[in-house]
Amino acid sequence: MKHRFYQVTGDLAGADGGKAMTKFMDVHRGMNGISAEQLNQAHQADLAIQSEEGVVFEHAWADPDEGVIYCLSDAPSAEAVMRIHQRAGHPADEIHAVPLEV
Amino acid sequence: MKHRFYQVTGDLAGADGGKAMTKFMDVHRGMNGISAEQLNQAHQADLAIQSEEGVVFEHAWADPDEGVIYCLSDAPSAEAVMRIHQRAGHPADEIHAVPLEV
Repeated sequence: MKHRFYQVTGDLAGADGGKAMTKFMDVHRGMNGISAEQLNQAHQADLAIQSEEGVVFEHAWADPDEGVIYCLSDAPSAEAVMRIHQRAGHPADEIHAVPLEV
Repeated sequence: MKHRFYQVTGDLAGADGGKAMTKFMDVHRGMNGISAEQLNQAHQADLAIQSEEGVVFEHAWADPDEGVIYCLSDAPSAEAVMRIHQRAGHPADEIHAVPLEV
């Protein structure tokens, strides 16, 4: 009889035993004139489906004058973040893994 | 004898009676390969002099692969943030007031 042993490290497994998470900052452009309510609605649309890709959206900050939104998330991959934003109706223009934080 | 009255509103005065504060996101580029320690040193250099301009740096996130850093602050003006970064030795390439947040 053969035994196999698996070791799951802290780096590879989250508290839920899931995939390793990385922090991402994505950027949306052309959102000139966005209101607080529209920003909130967009965020809620993300939150409603984020668990399907294992993404956790944390914050979003908007500059309505220049139409730029910065969106911070914890996710298993950049593609997962992009898919949620796409499905929620507001694809991101740019995304960066930001593993360093102070 | 003449009296002058000044009214300071909640919008114009912080808890310390100072200027109104706005949230800013600034962006630094060309920081490819930055380490966690270098990011921390840069942040500490900002923190050491931020009070001279009434700025409060809150967070910074770095993408060492693409050399981009996002830096979040509360400040009386974009110029105040830019002056601190400049004096600390790492001028920002871009800055946005981000008055909306979720």
